[in-house]
Amino acid sequence: MSNEMKQWVLASHPTGMPTKENWQLQTAPLPEPGAGEVLTRAVYLSVDPYMRGRISPRANYAAGVGVGDVMHGGGVGVVMESNDPALKPGDIVESFRFDWQEYNVQKGSALRKVDPDMGPIHSALSYLGLPGLTAYFTMLTAGELKEGDDAVISAASGAVGQVAGQIAVIKGARPIAVAGSDEKIAWCKELGYAEGINYKTEPDLTAAVKQACPNGVDLFLDNTAGPIHDAVMRNLAEKSRTVICGTVALADKFEEPDIGERFLRNIMIARATIRGFILFDHAKHFDQARKDLSSWAKSGKLRHREDMMHGIESMPAAFLRLMTGANMGKQLIQISDDPTL
Amino acid sequence: MSNEMKQWVLASHPTGMPTKENWQLQTAPLPEPGAGEVLTRAVYLSVDPYMRGRISPRANYAAGVGVGDVMHGGGVGVVMESNDPALKPGDIVESFRFDWQEYNVQKGSALRKVDPDMGPIHSALSYLGLPGLTAYFTMLTAGELKEGDDAVISAASGAVGQVAGQIAVIKGARPIAVAGSDEKIAWCKELGYAEGINYKTEPDLTAAVKQACPNGVDLFLDNTAGPIHDAVMRNLAEKSRTVICGTVALADKFEEPDIGERFLRNIMIARATIRGFILFDHAKHFDQARKDLSSWAKSGKLRHREDMMHGIESMPAAFLRLMTGANMGKQLIQISDDPTL
Repeated sequence: MSNEMKQWVLASHPTGMPTKENWQLQTAPLPEPGAGEVLTRAVYLSVDPYMRGRISPRANYAAGVGVGDVMHGGGVGVVMESNDPALKPGDIVESFRFDWQEYNVQKGSALRKVDPDMGPIHSALSYLGLPGLTAYFTMLTAGELKEGDDAVISAASGAVGQVAGQIAVIKGARPIAVAGSDEKIAWCKELGYAEGINYKTEPDLTAAVKQACPNGVDLFLDNTAGPIHDAVMRNLAEKSRTVICGTVALADKFEEPDIGERFLRNIMIARATIRGFILFDHAKHFDQARKDLSSWAKSGKLRHREDMMHGIESMPAAFLRLMTGANMGKQLIQISDDPTL
Repeated sequence: MSNEMKQWVLASHPTGMPTKENWQLQTAPLPEPGAGEVLTRAVYLSVDPYMRGRISPRANYAAGVGVGDVMHGGGVGVVMESNDPALKPGDIVESFRFDWQEYNVQKGSALRKVDPDMGPIHSALSYLGLPGLTAYFTMLTAGELKEGDDAVISAASGAVGQVAGQIAVIKGARPIAVAGSDEKIAWCKELGYAEGINYKTEPDLTAAVKQACPNGVDLFLDNTAGPIHDAVMRNLAEKSRTVICGTVALADKFEEPDIGERFLRNIMIARATIRGFILFDHAKHFDQARKDLSSWAKSGKLRHREDMMHGIESMPAAFLRLMTGANMGKQLIQISDDPTL
């Protein structure tokens, strides 16, 4: 173990679509754990769409990243040194604030022990982690998924969408994928999506949603905002539920108002519900959700796909792949050897 | 009783703000009741904001009024002749489809007997009728009103708003009125509204809502859409509920898309719920609601105010008062003598 590590700090707040120049790679001394603290080595780091909000200069629901701060992010790592009796060297742990760096020191209480028997340890960042839990609670809790629902899911091949579509299938609903390439749509159909709409090539999204859901959309998991949102709003079924989970289509105009058509009459006439979603409101049910997700994966009902990059140097590139929809499945970055493989 | 009556037919679908020329007064033979049918004389007729939707050429949740059709609308009347054993001459009845005419023939089963002991019989069109029931179910059911809520109510002095604000007071919440004149605001404060915002003279609605609700808006009864909606969306409290009940601010652009700022990120960050509302979804609970409303009125907790015009000739003018916000309280039209007075 070297005495130094690499880490990414925010060099500037983006205006519009972020670029690699918004971050800077720097060398820092290896941190030393104090009382109750634990030193971990990053094995896998995650990039997720919510990070676009964290790097905006505008206020957000989570504290933002300031210029010069190490970039925020979750990760899975292995304990190197522990001053917390609950953790010992070699334990696999997850943290929502591993951040973009090779090593991390945190209070042991901020780390969650990962059980390698529940799935590959990187799944703690995908279908057993933030994206899988998001799919679980958007569909089942906020979205009130019912058997027979026509459920439109945007960013359908992404980390959240691939799990959400399969949950719809497990619960007897009919998921419709919206994604940005024919390859992504094909993968969604392999996962059990009934239909797919390629929003990049489809000339009339409103008509395409209507064709896919002639009786209207019962549940809409909105991961993008933008034109896909608009197309669904014009096709709401009675008592339709829309869960606003992400707004990645606005990533290039994050600092300006989103101007466009508003759908208050459509919402009123359909008696639709539009509901904002933040995962951490559901934290006390995470354990049950992870058990369900793990058991579905082990029984073959829940498949998953990761888009794995390698090395701490890849962090901004991996995040930008996400922003532009270039990733295929959950975007992860392997930072060091996986001790369980 | 003459052999003829006056009635208003739709002369043309409006584009934009309706005008008197959209209707035409005509004379028609007095209708005769067939088997199971009842002839009623109109005593009070109602004009309500939902009628803007009925006269649009665009599809709507209720069947629209065609050119040449008698204009739809609710009323309270007195039975003149009855071929339904459940009703006898002299009974006071209410119908959601009395329509804009002096007499009406309907199946007895389409009429609801009005109990004059519950309140003045015109209250069946105001606080014991569509507006009162709308206030009741928007606040208590769709809006999940809680003690301590800061509840913003638009069109606050109107037929729905005046009841909604008092329900907020009854339930220990803090109602904030948005209305279009200082006189209306003063009346709202008499009713118990904690604060009032005159949207016609207030230069910065967003700042005014923030000042009235420094911790954000917990419940928003949205009767108007438009700039008031926008101001509240910028001030959502966590877990805020917005009930989309009416869109009268869009009355002059009903046939075109509503373009403006969209608030999906605000909704997401606040975990807010936006819910469309149609009263008739709650029909099976109307009796209980009428009992509550009547008892609140009798105990002095629920005051009400009517804006009464007179004569069948006044129908379009009364409706247009509503569209432009010129009315003060529930807009009614007395068509003939009230037999209970």
